[in-house]
Amino acid sequence: MDLTRIAIDANGGDNAPEIVVDGCLKAIEEASDIELILFGDQEDLERRLSERTFDKKRISIIDAKEKIDNNEAPVLAIRRKKNSSIVKGMQYVKEGHAHAFVSAGSTGAVLAGGTLIVGRIKGVERPALGSLIPTAKGMMLLMDCGANAENKPSHLHQFAKMGSVYIGAFLAIDNPKVGLVNVGAEEKKGNPLYQDTHQLLKGDTSINFIGNVEGRDISTGIADVVVADGFTGNIILKHTEGLASTLMGMVKEGMTSTLISKIGALMVKGALKENLKKLDYTEYGGAPLLGLEGLVVKAHGSSNAKAFKNAILQCRTFSKEKVNDKIKQHLL
Amino acid sequence: MDLTRIAIDANGGDNAPEIVVDGCLKAIEEASDIELILFGDQEDLERRLSERTFDKKRISIIDAKEKIDNNEAPVLAIRRKKNSSIVKGMQYVKEGHAHAFVSAGSTGAVLAGGTLIVGRIKGVERPALGSLIPTAKGMMLLMDCGANAENKPSHLHQFAKMGSVYIGAFLAIDNPKVGLVNVGAEEKKGNPLYQDTHQLLKGDTSINFIGNVEGRDISTGIADVVVADGFTGNIILKHTEGLASTLMGMVKEGMTSTLISKIGALMVKGALKENLKKLDYTEYGGAPLLGLEGLVVKAHGSSNAKAFKNAILQCRTFSKEKVNDKIKQHLL
Repeated sequence: MDLTRIAIDANGGDNAPEIVVDGCLKAIEEASDIELILFGDQEDLERRLSERTFDKKRISIIDAKEKIDNNEAPVLAIRRKKNSSIVKGMQYVKEGHAHAFVSAGSTGAVLAGGTLIVGRIKGVERPALGSLIPTAKGMMLLMDCGANAENKPSHLHQFAKMGSVYIGAFLAIDNPKVGLVNVGAEEKKGNPLYQDTHQLLKGDTSINFIGNVEGRDISTGIADVVVADGFTGNIILKHTEGLASTLMGMVKEGMTSTLISKIGALMVKGALKENLKKLDYTEYGGAPLLGLEGLVVKAHGSSNAKAFKNAILQCRTFSKEKVNDKIKQHLL
Repeated sequence: MDLTRIAIDANGGDNAPEIVVDGCLKAIEEASDIELILFGDQEDLERRLSERTFDKKRISIIDAKEKIDNNEAPVLAIRRKKNSSIVKGMQYVKEGHAHAFVSAGSTGAVLAGGTLIVGRIKGVERPALGSLIPTAKGMMLLMDCGANAENKPSHLHQFAKMGSVYIGAFLAIDNPKVGLVNVGAEEKKGNPLYQDTHQLLKGDTSINFIGNVEGRDISTGIADVVVADGFTGNIILKHTEGLASTLMGMVKEGMTSTLISKIGALMVKGALKENLKKLDYTEYGGAPLLGLEGLVVKAHGSSNAKAFKNAILQCRTFSKEKVNDKIKQHLL
């Protein structure tokens, strides 16, 4: 049996290390072919784990007490905090001891560490952060969601290829549909970055390019991968989260505004909750940072144990499906 | 009494001229101080209006049979179709016969005509399309929503000033809060366009700049005006529409998925509808193209009579509040 070894940042996230420990225990319970290495405060983690019942061989601890905060300058923090869980965990991946690294910590530090420590795949110009976003039909991968502040057409072309491989493996689909964010359907639409990217994608027969995707179609599920520069992608991702939360708040407020509607709300609650499950990010895991020599997954800062568990299990799929080997082949 | 004279594109939109005529009649019924001039097929419009009862002095017709379609190259169409309702209606504004022009027709043609025919206010580098977007607290103006494919910091600075004047008049608020779309709160975040724009806005004491607005805060109502380049703004606007529609579809589907939930749905329906009213674009009117010597309002292509009426009434506020005079003062 092939084991997937996953390094875990036990210091990262709003609710670390509690939910990290819980997520890890859930993950090894669900998947028998993974081994986890926790990076954090050894004493504290040993104490927490000693209170739990599980196969002790499958979780080990490496001491890494330092924590990188969200408000620290990422590159500087990566260079200085040699004993941080992010630096030590990523070095562990770099040295080949683990296949993947999962963190719910500082996005900036995870991105900086990914490039500076784990390192890019040869030929990858810029790593990119992909996020799974729910659509009317299921889900799609949006990338880049903010690993880059500025991009060139060749970067976006690589995002399309890497995203295509990733979502193909993740959703187990052949020939995933790739779309390019733009302000109109015609190929001349948008600014030069998007006009030139359109031509690169159109000319690449190794991907299934379906053309431009306008803002109004992002959520319809028209494409399996939607490509954007890091600035635009980040705004789309975060606006999706913010708007969904605003709208659901309005629905809830409306449903509980009168006595009759309150009774009705109790009756629709179960069915509604079930149908809106696909909006729940905790179901999907984290955001993969693609283009590195090893997988780095950024879990949501406010992840609960289930979300963290799913981020771990995502690494297993990545490793089993040999996503990085396929990305390398695809980029040649 | 000051009359606001408004030129109307009777050929534009999915349901023209029916909803245009209906919208005009509703508008003059609601506001006694406006006069409308319809540009379209004179014979047809005369026949339609002859069947209705209203104060005949308040609506006149100018023959302009040609129509510019959505799929025509906008600049070319504006240059060639001299008898189109858009060209003739805009010339009418340019010549000072009307204060404003409203169209539910081709966005591209309205934008091109605005600049080429109505003309920019002296000192305005680029006109911008503003859209009213519902938030958790009410509504805000997003601009530019797509009048420009590429922008410079000085453009965005002007968008902030013009948007501030417009929303102040429209919502009757003092010192509206202005935010800049960005990928993080810190002023160094984003690409050079946004970094430089941040400094311009921060240094301008004539606006109430509250800093960067991340994607997740766009819908919270944190700002009254959110400034973006035309590419980013267009994606945000259309994604907002698309996502809202997808989510509401999911809510509806969930609420009607079981027998119990169907009964509950009937009970929450009224209250929910009332609370979600603010999402209804027909309540707000159209998108103003700001920075021109006269107001041009782009109504939604699928506008119904109520939406079209509101787009007309919006022009009245614009004229009464002397928005253009204030923009001119503000830009000095």
